[in-house]
Amino acid sequence: MFKKVLIVGGVAGGASAAARVRRLDERAEIIMFEKSPHVSISNCSLPYHLSGIVENSERLVLMNPEIFKNRYNIEARVNQEVVQINREKKTIIVKDLVAAKMYEESYDHLVLSPGATPIRPNVEGINSPNVFTVRNVVDIENINSYIKQNGIHDIAVIGGGFIGVEVAENLKLAGYNVTLVEFANQVMTTFDYDMAQILHKEMIDHGVNLILEDGLAKLSDGYVLTNSGKKIDAQAVVLATGVKPETRLAEAAGLEIGETGAIKVDHNYVTSDSNIYAVGDAIEVYHRLLRKPTRLALAGPAQKQARVAADHMYGIPSRNMGVIGSSSIHLFELNAASTGLNVKQAKQAGIMHDSVYLMPGDKVGLMPNSNPMHFKLIYEYPTGRILGAQAIGKGNVDKRIDVVATIITMNGTLEDLKDLELTYSPMLGTAKDVVNHAALVGLNLLQGKYKEVKVSQVRDLIESNAFIIDAREQAEYEAGHFKNAINIPLSEFRQRIDEIPKDQPVYIHCRSGQRSYNMVMALQGLGYENIYNISGSYLGVNLYEYFNDIVTGRDKIVTEYNFK
Amino acid sequence: MFKKVLIVGGVAGGASAAARVRRLDERAEIIMFEKSPHVSISNCSLPYHLSGIVENSERLVLMNPEIFKNRYNIEARVNQEVVQINREKKTIIVKDLVAAKMYEESYDHLVLSPGATPIRPNVEGINSPNVFTVRNVVDIENINSYIKQNGIHDIAVIGGGFIGVEVAENLKLAGYNVTLVEFANQVMTTFDYDMAQILHKEMIDHGVNLILEDGLAKLSDGYVLTNSGKKIDAQAVVLATGVKPETRLAEAAGLEIGETGAIKVDHNYVTSDSNIYAVGDAIEVYHRLLRKPTRLALAGPAQKQARVAADHMYGIPSRNMGVIGSSSIHLFELNAASTGLNVKQAKQAGIMHDSVYLMPGDKVGLMPNSNPMHFKLIYEYPTGRILGAQAIGKGNVDKRIDVVATIITMNGTLEDLKDLELTYSPMLGTAKDVVNHAALVGLNLLQGKYKEVKVSQVRDLIESNAFIIDAREQAEYEAGHFKNAINIPLSEFRQRIDEIPKDQPVYIHCRSGQRSYNMVMALQGLGYENIYNISGSYLGVNLYEYFNDIVTGRDKIVTEYNFK
Repeated sequence: MFKKVLIVGGVAGGASAAARVRRLDERAEIIMFEKSPHVSISNCSLPYHLSGIVENSERLVLMNPEIFKNRYNIEARVNQEVVQINREKKTIIVKDLVAAKMYEESYDHLVLSPGATPIRPNVEGINSPNVFTVRNVVDIENINSYIKQNGIHDIAVIGGGFIGVEVAENLKLAGYNVTLVEFANQVMTTFDYDMAQILHKEMIDHGVNLILEDGLAKLSDGYVLTNSGKKIDAQAVVLATGVKPETRLAEAAGLEIGETGAIKVDHNYVTSDSNIYAVGDAIEVYHRLLRKPTRLALAGPAQKQARVAADHMYGIPSRNMGVIGSSSIHLFELNAASTGLNVKQAKQAGIMHDSVYLMPGDKVGLMPNSNPMHFKLIYEYPTGRILGAQAIGKGNVDKRIDVVATIITMNGTLEDLKDLELTYSPMLGTAKDVVNHAALVGLNLLQGKYKEVKVSQVRDLIESNAFIIDAREQAEYEAGHFKNAINIPLSEFRQRIDEIPKDQPVYIHCRSGQRSYNMVMALQGLGYENIYNISGSYLGVNLYEYFNDIVTGRDKIVTEYNFK
Repeated sequence: MFKKVLIVGGVAGGASAAARVRRLDERAEIIMFEKSPHVSISNCSLPYHLSGIVENSERLVLMNPEIFKNRYNIEARVNQEVVQINREKKTIIVKDLVAAKMYEESYDHLVLSPGATPIRPNVEGINSPNVFTVRNVVDIENINSYIKQNGIHDIAVIGGGFIGVEVAENLKLAGYNVTLVEFANQVMTTFDYDMAQILHKEMIDHGVNLILEDGLAKLSDGYVLTNSGKKIDAQAVVLATGVKPETRLAEAAGLEIGETGAIKVDHNYVTSDSNIYAVGDAIEVYHRLLRKPTRLALAGPAQKQARVAADHMYGIPSRNMGVIGSSSIHLFELNAASTGLNVKQAKQAGIMHDSVYLMPGDKVGLMPNSNPMHFKLIYEYPTGRILGAQAIGKGNVDKRIDVVATIITMNGTLEDLKDLELTYSPMLGTAKDVVNHAALVGLNLLQGKYKEVKVSQVRDLIESNAFIIDAREQAEYEAGHFKNAINIPLSEFRQRIDEIPKDQPVYIHCRSGQRSYNMVMALQGLGYENIYNISGSYLGVNLYEYFNDIVTGRDKIVTEYNFK
């Protein structure tokens, strides 16, 4: 007899499991149940329908049930909700949402890939017909047709994670007046606050109204009210305040739920029932850096898990390396990517760490497509083991993060990263790649070759009138500089050495940190002991303080903005 | 007393060594001698002056002697040729090329970074004033002004390495009639022949006249003659037939020269004289995959070597991991990158290996910036250790090669590459990245899950009338297919199973290999034992045979070309 494999959910995890089972077993009976009308959709592309980048929403559906049947002999049943698992009988109860009938189906192996459900905050007006969430093709079609048919002008997006930010971007590109409301003090928590400021600036520069540290209090006719009392024009609202793993079916069947609230699985993605597997956004996975279970709602890992589950049904062993969490986003003109832990996560987990922040060009400066790139590297102290990285810029920042993700997976250190021999040509990169460069800076810090202060510490230094040297040339200084900073260009400091005190801390910056680093090293070589480089330098501090100054109206710490 | 460090050569290696010594020792006396009028130039950007992408040739000079002096207190002496080393006295003899005087300078440490000289083939007419090489800013200015001032129309570029290809591209972009002559059967030997065909096609598609397997016989007035007797219109000729390490100074001083003909250095880039270091294109380095000395004329490694040499002067130890050779090139609309060994090198070195060739999209297919990418992965047999990779496409192919370079450096295997958790968003990549995908295919081959034939074997199969199944849909087949191939779409094969013989080898392809792979697995599951997937599939074979058909005029093996 051949195996009968049932799969709950027909997107990333489910479709991958089905296809893999078929490749391993031409004779297995495979049935995939999907509650929505579509299987095999490109979830991550959903927001792009709102801008028209993906004009035809049908293209968001990668494969229809006919193709599954013809090519793979897989039965993909859409509009079918699995409502119950009878573990002892090894059957499921399915509700046909079109025919409104229930039926039973037996299995040898069951794979749960039900995904995660958008969270709906419990506030007044949340069930109005102009309030939407984004999970599938029908959802995105509904938003698109509602705002078009009703001549909507103002839209509020609640939540600044991946979906919220991408929805806000695509609605803005379509010409709507978009307000994004985020409860935390930053969007995209995969990034640290300093890096997120670049994303905030990008959204504001492109006309998105950004409201941070505020939440949804009430939805009303034509507007939403925030916790702080702000009234935001919005004839439509998109909720993107996060997702919760879809565990109802598993819980009702008595399957074990993990400490994160997601379905608990073992090494092979087997649940507490040996005939039932679970994969994708509904499960918890092992975080190899944090060494504990976590949730990770990403398509790539879901596909890998599905393959392992299918292999396990056929006795093929797999290695489970846990996850590190790598992701990227395209936002207006920027690309942003991150991997592993950020500083905030490392701090919360009590992992000793330090970080470096650089902003070199992404390509050779004289090439027309060269752009600055912001890069942050996090490593373990005192071992130098790489923990994470974040990069943001107009160009190929994601390639640097993929390299760091690889190094993390291979348990690499700063020493490994510094030695990497990466590809280079002037149109595609720089001879010394930012990852090499960041590793060198990290090693210098780790080994105590020099000291630095972070961008977040600079406001206090300026306000307390610390001795700050601006090592840029005079013309650059005059175009905009930190209050209280003294201009001693690198090209002049040897002649003006008497102006630099030996008996107090001296903080040095230039534009991006290259010249100040050289001045720091030179002063140390001359016996100065209390010299600090300002990490991120003028550009980094400016960006870090951007939101404070522009939006929250704190006193500016520079005489003039200069982001060049 | 403070150290006196002299440096011969002021480009990548020399300038990096000088800057590093300064950071380590504010009081050292540092003098850098450069034969040409410019230090710190962007070598790799030189060809871009010919197209005007770098319009002003002064921008190719990144730092002038004044900046070296002012910022770093480094004396950069241009137009100074170091003609002799007196090792016992620890001095050098310098010829001032402007004042035409000789003088002596003493050193504590000497760093040789003299680079490599373009090879000039010994043929008739080679010393004509219209024959150029490309090494420095003056060279590229000379070419540019010669061809402009003399109203040149036709230019021959001899040699299809990095410089030849980039010079040909930039001259073509500037509107000249360009012929590239290469002695081997392919350009860019960092790529295997199958991958190089994509580059050949790109050059031909953009109007470069490409002549392979031919050499320069004679230069004459208005034309060049090739070995095969071809007469090529050319009022100017650029020689790019390779470089030889600049070893004259070292040899004359009795420093040891290695087996590759370059200066021999130890772990710390110390020559056979403990006071003399050598770095950059003039030295030989250890190839960590081939386990023998090699030459690697690249800017990134030169900078790293310079740092190690400077550190060693100050007792700072370094790790020497050897090199793997990573590089990239931008060519018209394509990007191409490679790392580690290609199949040809692995074969020559007698390293047991296998390879996979895939051509997925570089981004999610429904995104407007999605393009096909050609990807080849080479691994050791039977260990699965990664040896190399090559990628070519319009998009971000280099990031995939950087990831493989990292895996190679960390001694990773197919298993490691398959598990990598890389960044993904629809505008920047695919949920399952090509490196994950290639590793899975490689593991299947390594573990004997199925068999394949390479693109190079397909012509013979077609010409010998093997049983070849085209698994694409009928409409795709009718738009162009291999001669003698039988169209059995994946979507129909289960109904047409009787048409597939069990008693002879069956070779299956589709467009890019995805559908044929599924058919291979299904047939095996049904007991077929002699099934082969055609690696590279229809697209790959078409490209592989492109040059054979188009240029050498062999019988076409497809009914019609279809590169879509």
